[in-house]
Amino acid sequence: MKKAGRKLAGRYRVGAGGQFRLEGWDPADTAGLALTKEEAATLLGKGADELLALQDKLYAQDRWAVLLVFQGMDAAGKDGTIKHVMSGVNPQGVQVHSFKEPSAEELDHDFLWRASRRLPERGNIGIFNRSHYEEVLVVRVHEEILEAQKLPPELVTKKIWEERYDDINSFERHLDRNGTVIRKFFLNVSREEQKKRLLARLDDPDKNWKFSSADAEERRLWKEYVRAYEEMIAATSTKWAPWYAVPADNKWFTRIVVSSVITQTLEDLDLSYPKIGTKKRRELARVRKVIARS
Amino acid sequence: MKKAGRKLAGRYRVGAGGQFRLEGWDPADTAGLALTKEEAATLLGKGADELLALQDKLYAQDRWAVLLVFQGMDAAGKDGTIKHVMSGVNPQGVQVHSFKEPSAEELDHDFLWRASRRLPERGNIGIFNRSHYEEVLVVRVHEEILEAQKLPPELVTKKIWEERYDDINSFERHLDRNGTVIRKFFLNVSREEQKKRLLARLDDPDKNWKFSSADAEERRLWKEYVRAYEEMIAATSTKWAPWYAVPADNKWFTRIVVSSVITQTLEDLDLSYPKIGTKKRRELARVRKVIARS
Repeated sequence: MKKAGRKLAGRYRVGAGGQFRLEGWDPADTAGLALTKEEAATLLGKGADELLALQDKLYAQDRWAVLLVFQGMDAAGKDGTIKHVMSGVNPQGVQVHSFKEPSAEELDHDFLWRASRRLPERGNIGIFNRSHYEEVLVVRVHEEILEAQKLPPELVTKKIWEERYDDINSFERHLDRNGTVIRKFFLNVSREEQKKRLLARLDDPDKNWKFSSADAEERRLWKEYVRAYEEMIAATSTKWAPWYAVPADNKWFTRIVVSSVITQTLEDLDLSYPKIGTKKRRELARVRKVIARS
Repeated sequence: MKKAGRKLAGRYRVGAGGQFRLEGWDPADTAGLALTKEEAATLLGKGADELLALQDKLYAQDRWAVLLVFQGMDAAGKDGTIKHVMSGVNPQGVQVHSFKEPSAEELDHDFLWRASRRLPERGNIGIFNRSHYEEVLVVRVHEEILEAQKLPPELVTKKIWEERYDDINSFERHLDRNGTVIRKFFLNVSREEQKKRLLARLDDPDKNWKFSSADAEERRLWKEYVRAYEEMIAATSTKWAPWYAVPADNKWFTRIVVSSVITQTLEDLDLSYPKIGTKKRRELARVRKVIARS
């Protein structure tokens, strides 16, 4: 399985410094895999066990942090993927943050401020459900949001998106250099599949609450979003913080790909339980006697 | 199972406003249950599924928050209980915080400040691994820690512990009144069992890192800790934020009791997916047409 997982992860990784056009990436792709729902769940269960074991070491070692970024259109499956891939890991060691509309306090700071406050501690996995990338997506598609950010007008030039990509890349490189490993997932759902899912939310009373009328409005801006995603992914898929364009029309497949990428990332860290030095070992031997007598 | 779980939860709940003496509570009690490791794991697995379903509603409803406090001597099983009871719930919706030595910034504030910064948001389950109760436990047993808190000397009187209990009770009542449900677990391990576990940590190289020489020092102060725990639990087990004295000599049993209490707590909230009003329903019907055509 390890080799297969590695292959899957590699297949959807977006190379650094190139073009990125969505038409080359099939949202319904399953890499030739055809699993039943049960088979997929079993496979994902195994992945969860591996993940739990790796996370245990990550936490014990307390040196690396892992930041996982999830972006995608409405109904692309961000919440469901996080739920199904990460339920099973120890919540002591995982921090999930959903980025919603920024608060007044957050708007009074630079656009990376609120993301940096939510970064995972060493030993932890941090999950951003949406992220600082909204700053070059929704903010780009809706000019009025940029206006609400109260930037001094002379700073808002044609180059603002280039500058933001640049700032994001530098921010992430800094994190990478200081022990936070970053992996970014773009859940690539088709317009047809989104339609099905939004209608399903409308038809199931238990899911109505998940539906926001804004989702329908945003859907009308599909093309604008595609353009913003393409440009953003091309500009910010770096060696130190790559994007994965994960097919998202089949939920079971999305989950398996994401799980494989996370597992591979942790495996590559060569984690181990902390070894203790000679001095500490002598100290423990002394303490052992004390406890044994007590 | 529901009824049995409820009975278990009731059995270990400490009544409000009375005495609390540890000798009345057997750390090895299993309420007559004798399960194999496998049977216990199966039962806990079922509990985890129930918990996941309840948590999903808690999160969707976004009205209540749940705060779970874990306290206990070293090696009582706090980390393991959190891991085994809560792995399986969706980490999006759970916030675990381990309280360690306070930072200089934290020491410059009142003793509840750092706890209040870590409270769970509505819709979430917050877990305190250790908590504000350390302020009447380790701080009480080690006078030098109280001194390091830089309180104006005239505020440090004989009544300080009574005042702290009082402040904690008021703080928790305020939280309860505003939608944060609180349940507190004292993991009741015996001195003998602690010895076994500490020695096991010393003998397993993969667990050495978990061992702190301070654990051996603290063990020498067992009696002082017992006194501090007894007085604290008697003073702060309230109707709105009860303590549970959970037998902790058998890990499988600890986990089943804690899982039962959490499940019961969530069940009593009568959670449901948010219902939408007539106006919103009409709006959704309109939007449905737009999406169906798009």
